[in-house]
Formats: sequence, structure tokens, C-alpha cells
Amino acid sequence: MTTKYVKNAVGRMIPTEINGQPVTPFQGPHGYKTTGHKYSPLIRTCADYPDDGDKRAPDLKAALLKSGLKDGMTISTHHHFRNGDLIANQIFEIAAELGVKDLIWFPSASFPCHEPLIEYLEDGTIHHIEGSMNGALGRFASQGKMRGAGVLRSHGGRYQAVQDGEVVIDIAVIAAPTADPFGNANGLTGPSACGLLGFALADSLYAHNVIVVTDNLVPFPCIPWQIQGNNVDTVVETEQIGIPERIVSGTTQITKSPDRLYIAELTAKFCDAAGIIRDGFSFQAGAGGTALAIGNYFGEIMRGQGIKARFARGGSNQYLVELLDQGLVDYILDGQTFDLEGVRSMRENPHHVDTSPFTSYNYHGKGNFASMLDVVILGATEVDVNFNGNVVTHSDGYLLHGMGGWQNCLFGKTVILPIPLFRDRIPVIRDEVTTICGPGELIDVIVTERGIAINPRRTDLIEVVKDSGLPIKTIHELKGEGERICGVPQPPQFEDKIIAAIKWVDGTVIDVVRQVKE
Amino acid sequence: MTTKYVKNAVGRMIPTEINGQPVTPFQGPHGYKTTGHKYSPLIRTCADYPDDGDKRAPDLKAALLKSGLKDGMTISTHHHFRNGDLIANQIFEIAAELGVKDLIWFPSASFPCHEPLIEYLEDGTIHHIEGSMNGALGRFASQGKMRGAGVLRSHGGRYQAVQDGEVVIDIAVIAAPTADPFGNANGLTGPSACGLLGFALADSLYAHNVIVVTDNLVPFPCIPWQIQGNNVDTVVETEQIGIPERIVSGTTQITKSPDRLYIAELTAKFCDAAGIIRDGFSFQAGAGGTALAIGNYFGEIMRGQGIKARFARGGSNQYLVELLDQGLVDYILDGQTFDLEGVRSMRENPHHVDTSPFTSYNYHGKGNFASMLDVVILGATEVDVNFNGNVVTHSDGYLLHGMGGWQNCLFGKTVILPIPLFRDRIPVIRDEVTTICGPGELIDVIVTERGIAINPRRTDLIEVVKDSGLPIKTIHELKGEGERICGVPQPPQFEDKIIAAIKWVDGTVIDVVRQVKE
Repeated sequence: MTTKYVKNAVGRMIPTEINGQPVTPFQGPHGYKTTGHKYSPLIRTCADYPDDGDKRAPDLKAALLKSGLKDGMTISTHHHFRNGDLIANQIFEIAAELGVKDLIWFPSASFPCHEPLIEYLEDGTIHHIEGSMNGALGRFASQGKMRGAGVLRSHGGRYQAVQDGEVVIDIAVIAAPTADPFGNANGLTGPSACGLLGFALADSLYAHNVIVVTDNLVPFPCIPWQIQGNNVDTVVETEQIGIPERIVSGTTQITKSPDRLYIAELTAKFCDAAGIIRDGFSFQAGAGGTALAIGNYFGEIMRGQGIKARFARGGSNQYLVELLDQGLVDYILDGQTFDLEGVRSMRENPHHVDTSPFTSYNYHGKGNFASMLDVVILGATEVDVNFNGNVVTHSDGYLLHGMGGWQNCLFGKTVILPIPLFRDRIPVIRDEVTTICGPGELIDVIVTERGIAINPRRTDLIEVVKDSGLPIKTIHELKGEGERICGVPQPPQFEDKIIAAIKWVDGTVIDVVRQVKE
Repeated sequence: MTTKYVKNAVGRMIPTEINGQPVTPFQGPHGYKTTGHKYSPLIRTCADYPDDGDKRAPDLKAALLKSGLKDGMTISTHHHFRNGDLIANQIFEIAAELGVKDLIWFPSASFPCHEPLIEYLEDGTIHHIEGSMNGALGRFASQGKMRGAGVLRSHGGRYQAVQDGEVVIDIAVIAAPTADPFGNANGLTGPSACGLLGFALADSLYAHNVIVVTDNLVPFPCIPWQIQGNNVDTVVETEQIGIPERIVSGTTQITKSPDRLYIAELTAKFCDAAGIIRDGFSFQAGAGGTALAIGNYFGEIMRGQGIKARFARGGSNQYLVELLDQGLVDYILDGQTFDLEGVRSMRENPHHVDTSPFTSYNYHGKGNFASMLDVVILGATEVDVNFNGNVVTHSDGYLLHGMGGWQNCLFGKTVILPIPLFRDRIPVIRDEVTTICGPGELIDVIVTERGIAINPRRTDLIEVVKDSGLPIKTIHELKGEGERICGVPQPPQFEDKIIAAIKWVDGTVIDVVRQVKE
């Protein structure tokens, strides 16, 4: 059996099959249109559920058995607890103990705390991971040790894949900081409070079996119900679902690096000069040190001009909450709270609204929030001279990161990547990125400590900032400066084996990642 | 073509087809199980919707044309504005003007304000109504003048029918007191504030085309989004969507009739004697004068015993809100606000929670709220000696009411019908009800001004109240008393023509209504 390849719309060679499933190659950011129907779950009946609404099972093992856990199933979990998750590993421990094999793990993201799952990838309990493979898991995959190919999706792409039936979840396990015996659940209160549970929304709607696990059971009704008990099969009460100090980082701080601060300032100045920061505008920045600094600069500019933003998209944190509390932002539309201030604000302030990958990012909906944003600030491991971006692999070829909402955010009106010119003496701007996660036509501006490059497609931006005094350069000039300092790096060497596919927001494959030659 | 009939589980003869669709006869309250899949709507793509989220069309006509309005389509509307709705009639006015024929109107309920639609039933614009036909519309149908048969469903049954694909909605028109150009909408604010939009939830999820019409457009984001813009195709701004004083009755008052007050008191005493009113219990009463009085008596009992209810289901009103504000009820889980106090409380109090037919009533879910209620207080036009209940026809055979959530509420742990022994000198307790809307095995207690009858199946209730001093009688005794006063009424005379089907909560047909012989 020889694998066939086709060249997709960004020039990457894509196999026609991955994990035995047919592949649709990427056809441009808006190119692919499906005429299919959404996945249609089985009709359930109240006759099969307890009249008194008490769906409790004694423990996770009992709940998994009740859900019919068996070989080859797809099991989903969620990263609301980030590096403090205590549940995902337990599931596969139980499965291994039961001798269940060839499971597909479908997390919304993975973290270093999931490194113990390598044991279950090795012993056959888990066949492969459909989702981000960070750190050790990514290295394991990059070494060609995972049996199936990983499938990486954006947060919105994950929702799309479940909604459209590309991934059929047999058992969804939703760890919830607060829940009632009926399965209503939220992330706002309890010892493991994480803010919201939006990453589990698709799973709750479409999975065959839905298990809610909580360490804070309250009498019905659990209000608000971010996850609705009417979609839940089984509830498990357990001692601890997450490690609080790893759930919220608590220490997310504005960068102190002079280079990063300069990049942040330059980014904010660019937005100001480009007329993006105006009354009623909207923005999304991340929770990294540079992004936080940019948010602060935005706040200064708004204060100075006596204007405010209509909404900001989170990941929220203390700095964004400050802008909300000071009336500089009308609403935070939040997909993920990054610190305790974010959790508190979401719990208390009706203007701090929880969102989901459905509302914010799903490309197969009737519009989404991402495309309405005036400006989006994102990161990248590499960018190339055609403005293509990479967020999953390093320049040595190893798959070490997930995509989060990165691809989805590319649909914002202006997309800016504030990035250093080099990291560990390896230039970030390349002739070609190792892995294309987003096509250059959606990336508008690169801001580095040595200057700003504007995508030639954005003639409007080039025009409006041309007399701003900002250090505008071409992407080739920036690339040249990086290489003058660090030299031209050797490209990584790969084996033939495909260890992961990178899905675009519409379910097509934009690139693949291969085993690293070691 | 001769119609075939089968006898269903409550002994009613049911045709095998209604409106050309095959019929599943009622098989007992929990008897029917489907192995089908939920309806799967088309996959949509953001590529077909405006990036800036602005989905406005200039007017309702333009929106209907954009939605592809044509002969034979199913058009849904909602009764959030009750008798103050200004939109449903406009839709069919426009359709008639465009010469569109044979539409199916699928309202969540109809009101006297919809009487003008008779013109469109007569001129062929509307083929038939799938939904309640109150007052004049019901009389029109009962006279055999509607071309198709009406199909009456409970609120939960309507959700079930849409979810399961029994009714495929071509165009849903959702009138919303507040909305943004993306289609996010709520009922909490604006000149036509009605509280919530839960009756339109199914339609927003499953209809091919969703139009939101508002007279209070706000900039994105409209918070909260009871209806999510991600499910909406088109937004229309219009001058007025509802007549405020008819949206909320404002005048819902506790009964002053001594007989009704006595029935209310007896009902509350019964609940107390039966041990139903205990700390942490739950209840649902309606918004009629008797039900309001019962709620008040419940409040007195709770105050007296120093206990509180965990939750009450609304229809909310000033009296229920008072119980919430006084801490006698932890949560109101509300499906419909009946007065301005209800709207205000839902807007301001996080413990006053909006629900939908999905959470509360959908029988084809993983449980629902209705079965968790300790006690439910309902009305009926007739009850028979087997405790079967009727809420849609009068004893003269005319179809004059919809079912609301009545059938769904029958799943509460104890179901009590406080009803007068006669109305207009016609006895309410009969040998057989004109139309069976709910099977007697789900109806536990009948409370009248002449005594209380307990369903013989509820030996537990009979036992616990036997020494309470309450006037417990058999249903036959009560029937006899009614007939001694009013005489034995003549049964109504019917033609063969079936003018409406009564669906059970699971989509089976529990009874049909025939044309009245005039």
C-alpha cells in the first residue's frame, strides 16, 4: 500500500488518507464548502434516566463501565484545568487496568501534566491523540513512537469536527468545578474553579455518553449551567479534580524584558497610527507577557483619548479585568480565564461573559465572533516571507505546541504577530515555515524589535502608517537582519512518516508534520 | 382512499395517517421508544455570512424573500408576546401579498390577536396550523374549515418534534425585545420586554432559516444572548414588535372567588398533610387566580415552619418573585414571565433563571426538570373517573385551548388538579373526557370545592392523609355531586372529520379532535 499525495492550496504535499480516513486538502482560507449535514446524535428518552434527576455513579470507573467503555473508543477530555488536570490520566489508568486497548484520546488541549499518558501510548491502551501534543507528548510523537497520526485542530476546528461528525466521541468526560446530581455544571465556584467550561460544549451536545466529574457537588439546580444536565448521562463525585495553583497560573505577569516591552509598545503605537484604536473598537490579545503589555498600552491610549472598546475577547486576566472595571471595555467575551481575577470577574460581573468555541470560533456556523474583531494579537514559532505562520513545531522540526484558537483568530480584521526576531539564536522569520498553520493572506503585520513588516496585500495599512514615523520595513529586510545576527539556520531533517496532520478551521488539511530524523 | 384506525393505549381510535404523515399511536406514558437520530441541520459556513457580523435586512419582507419563502413551507413563530404579538400576522400578510400558498404555521402558541389569520386560512395562504388554536382559530378548525388537521403539542413536545425532525422548519421568525445585528437576542430589555425567548430555542437550533426581528437594536454584543446569533441568518429592525400591555398581563391577581380560594386552601392543606411541603422541596403552579392563591398559601406554610423551597418553576409573577425575594425559594426556574415583576426579577436576580422547553420539558433528552418537581398544580377543562385529563376542548366539543406545558408537568412526583366541580353549570368530572390530553395514571389528586379525590394508584398518598381531617372522597362521589347539581350533560355530537391531533410528549398520538356537528 503506497500513500498517495496531493499538493494543497499552500503548496504542501498532503496524503489522501490519515488514520485510514480520507483527507480533504486545504483549498484556501474560504475555499472549501461542504454540503453535508451536522452530526445527528441518537434520540434519548427520559424513560431511560432517573425521574428524580440523580445520575450519580459511585466512581469514575463505574461511570466508564456504565458508558460501555471498550476497545477503539474515542474519549474526550478538556483543558479547563490546564496543567492542573487530575482526571484525564485517571481515565486511561482505569482503561489500562480494565485491559481496554486502542482508545483515541480527544482532548481540547494537552499539558505537561499529561506526560504519564506516554505509558498508555506505549502499552496500547491509547492508539493516538487527536489534539494538541505539547512538550513530552509532542516529542514522543515527533520521534515516530505513536501508532496513529495525531490530528491537531484549532479550538474552533475541534468544535467543527464534532459538530460535523468528523470526530464521533464515544465518551466525554467533563471535569467540572461545580455540578449537581443532574449534571448541570459550571466552572465558577468550588476549590477547582477555572472560570468556564466552554471547551466541553461540543462534547456535551454530540458525544454518545457524557460523564461529569466534580469535587463540588451542590443540590439541583447548579446555577448557572454552563454545561446542561439535559445532555449528561452520569455524574461522579470525586475528591479532587484539579490542582488549583496549576489551574490558574496566578503569576501571569507583564513582561519585564526590554525587547519584549519595546515590541509591545511598537504594536500599540502601530494600532494607534493605523486608526484601529477608536471608540467602540474591539481587540483580542493573549495571556503571554508581551500580549499583556500590549493590553496595558491599549488602556493608556484609550484613557488618553477618552474612548473605550466595545468588547475585548479573552483569555482574561487581571489586566483585562482592570480595563473592564475601569469602564474602558464594555464587555469581555471570554473563552478561558487565565487567573483568579478572571474567574472572580466572570462570576460576579455580568459584563464578563463566558463564550465557547461555538460562539467565538466555529467556522461552520452562521458567522462567529472571531471575524468581528478589529485587531487580534497572536504569537508564532515561525513566520515566513509570505507571512505564513507556524505555531506547532519548532525550527528543529519537533511538534511541541497545540494551536489553541490561533487559526480562528486569523479571521480578525487586522492580525498582528508581535514576535522577537530570533529565539535561542534561531531566526524566527524564515524562507518557509517548518509547518504552515495559517496562510499568509490572513496575517497582516509582523512586529519585531527591529521593525514592523506589513503584508503587501494590506495596501490600506501601508498607506495609512506611511508617515507615522514607525520603523516600517519589508519582511525580507527583517529576515535579513535576523540572519545577519544568527546566521542562516539548517533546515530540520525528517523521515517519511507522518506523525500529525494540521487541520484548517473547515476540516481540510493545511499541512502535515513528519517524524524527525534523530 | 379510506382512513384506517387503530386503538391506542388509552382506548382512543387513531388514524394511521394525519396530514399525509404516518402516525404512531400512544403506547402509554413511558411506552414508546425510538431508535432514531436527532434531526441534522445543514452545515453552514462563515464564508456565507458577513465578516463584520452585520446580518441586517431592510425589512421583514426582504428577510422572508432572502430566506427563500415559497409555497408549502413551514413557518414558525413564538408566543413570548402572548396576546400582544404584532409579527405573526405580518408574516402571512406579506406571504399573501406575494401570492405564496399552502404554508404551515408552526407557532409555539396562538392567541386571540391571531384571529386575523383566519383570512389567510380561507384564502389558501396558510394550509394548516401545527400548534395551539385558541378561541376563534380553534372554533374555525372545529367547524371543519381548516384544510389540514391541526397538530397540538405540549411545549416539550414541540421541542421534541423539532429536535427529532418530525417538524422541519423552513423559516423561523423570532421576535426579540433586544437584539444585535449579529442576531444575539434576549427578552429582558426594550419596550417589548417579555422576559425570555426559550420557546424559540429549538427553532434557532434546527430551522433552515432564522430571522430575528427586533424593535430595540443594540450594538454587538447583545448580552445575555438567550438566542445565539451564531444560529441566526437575518436580522430585521422594525418599529414595534409587541403591544406591551398585552405582552405582560400586569393584572394577574389572586382569585377573589370564595369557592376558588377554598379550593386553593384545600390544595395547600393537602400538600402540607401529605408531607410534600418540606425543607428543600420544589413546586410548580400556574398563573391563574387559583394557582396564585396556592403559591401564597405555600408561602404561609413555609414561613410558619421556617423552611424554604429549593426551587419553584415559573411562569413567574409578582407573587412568586416575592417568595424568591423573601428567601422562601432558592431559585425560580422560569419558562415564561407573566408580569413586569417577573421580567424585572429575571433581568436583575441571578437566582431567577430563564429555562427553555429543552431543559424543562423535552422528553427526548437525558432527563428533564419536570420529573424532578415534588408537586405540580395544573388545570383542566375536564377530568374523568379514570383521572384522564382534558385541557384543549370544552364539553361542547370545541377546540379552544392549547396545551402549554401541561402534559410535560404530568411527570412531576405529585400532580394535583384544583378544579371547580362545574363551570357554567356543566360538570367538570365526567365518565369520559371529550379529549384525552393526559393519561390518568399520571394525575394524582383532584381538589374541588366539595372534596378531594386521590387516584387509587397513589396508595401512599391515601395512607398518609387518611387521618388528616381533609374531605377525601372518591372520584365517583365527586362526579355524583356535580351531576346532582347540574344534571348529566349530553355528550357533544361530532362529524367524522378529524380536525386536530393531540400529540403525547414522545411524538405519539394520544387522541384526535373531530369536527363539531352544528
